[in-house]
Amino acid sequence: MDAVIKVGGSLAGNPATLKALCIRLSEIAKKHSIIVVPGGGKFADAVREFDQRYALSADAAHKMAILGMDQFGLLLSQVIPNSCTTYSFSDAKQLSEGKALPIFLPSRLMFQENPLEASWDVTSDSIAAYVASQLHADKVILVTDVDGVFKSDPKKHSDTKLIPRLSASELLALAQRTSVDKFLPKLLLKTHLDCYVVNGAYPERIGAILAGQRTVCTLVKAGSK
Amino acid sequence: MDAVIKVGGSLAGNPATLKALCIRLSEIAKKHSIIVVPGGGKFADAVREFDQRYALSADAAHKMAILGMDQFGLLLSQVIPNSCTTYSFSDAKQLSEGKALPIFLPSRLMFQENPLEASWDVTSDSIAAYVASQLHADKVILVTDVDGVFKSDPKKHSDTKLIPRLSASELLALAQRTSVDKFLPKLLLKTHLDCYVVNGAYPERIGAILAGQRTVCTLVKAGSK
Repeated sequence: MDAVIKVGGSLAGNPATLKALCIRLSEIAKKHSIIVVPGGGKFADAVREFDQRYALSADAAHKMAILGMDQFGLLLSQVIPNSCTTYSFSDAKQLSEGKALPIFLPSRLMFQENPLEASWDVTSDSIAAYVASQLHADKVILVTDVDGVFKSDPKKHSDTKLIPRLSASELLALAQRTSVDKFLPKLLLKTHLDCYVVNGAYPERIGAILAGQRTVCTLVKAGSK
Repeated sequence: MDAVIKVGGSLAGNPATLKALCIRLSEIAKKHSIIVVPGGGKFADAVREFDQRYALSADAAHKMAILGMDQFGLLLSQVIPNSCTTYSFSDAKQLSEGKALPIFLPSRLMFQENPLEASWDVTSDSIAAYVASQLHADKVILVTDVDGVFKSDPKKHSDTKLIPRLSASELLALAQRTSVDKFLPKLLLKTHLDCYVVNGAYPERIGAILAGQRTVCTLVKAGSK
């Protein structure tokens, strides 16, 4: 499999951007073996809000947030042409070898096998990387609403610079950084998986990454690969 | 089974109210055979918002909203003492005969069997009534944040009067009314199930309904029972 592509929930805030990205992903699926893992976005944000008000257990909040990924996956299935949802690795793999674009809904896998720790450090970034490692994908691509990983939030600090490339160990050591969850670098180190963080508002960059071309993004190299 | 009790998601807006209600439900479960069906609340509201922005298919929006009920069910499991979640009718029934309070998560049943139409006319009210009919419960109790069914929204019109009792046929015929979804009266007519709509801010009213005592609520009598 060429790549597992996580579509960040924050992209849903701009329907025109999300629709253009989804059309491009459908086209990419005709040439590449890819699967989509949904982010959580506003659905997971609703869970965060209640977690703060009700001090939920880590396990309950984690499960609720994962259901938010299923919800966003169902939304994506409406926006990505020629896509379909699945809960199964084997179905996802088989579908990705055809021309359809499978969207993996993570709830059943995560509830049954519980392979990652239940905390807000593990979000859809780490879940996408875990799925990529289990499916032996070449890379995991995290599509978000900024150009990649920055030391501080580029929406708040216009002078902050994109980090074009760093190792998973370096990512782990960065005290301040944006765009990816805390657990991700540990998982990349363990799974030897390369990870790209890229802006979904420029879907041609995803095509460039898959074609092995240089583009604006952050590449997190798995150190020991 | 004595009753299926739907806990409306709107009650989550006031943690003190929800917690007091949940403690009372746990006490009621020691004397009565009951199960809880969660509402959707803010989790379903997030789906409605995206449905408006993305014009989702009825089927996708329906599934996403049902996942919202699972999410609220997981939240309730954190607030109701001595409760547990289940996807299975047989587990729910067995648990309700002991002293634990089962919370039924509807996604698996609804996705697999798809027994009700996929539309916003079918919300957790109808799903709770469907669960009650399948479990041969004596009644379905819809716990919400107002005193029962009104002809107009009591939060906006202080002069509107509570309807203490009406038949499912009368409910179906009411052009304007509050508190319950559109499909519910049809389902009550079909299943011959009595339905109570009651304010969760006064949990003693739920105890009164189960004890067969008069209290402030709306009773929707299944016409042909």
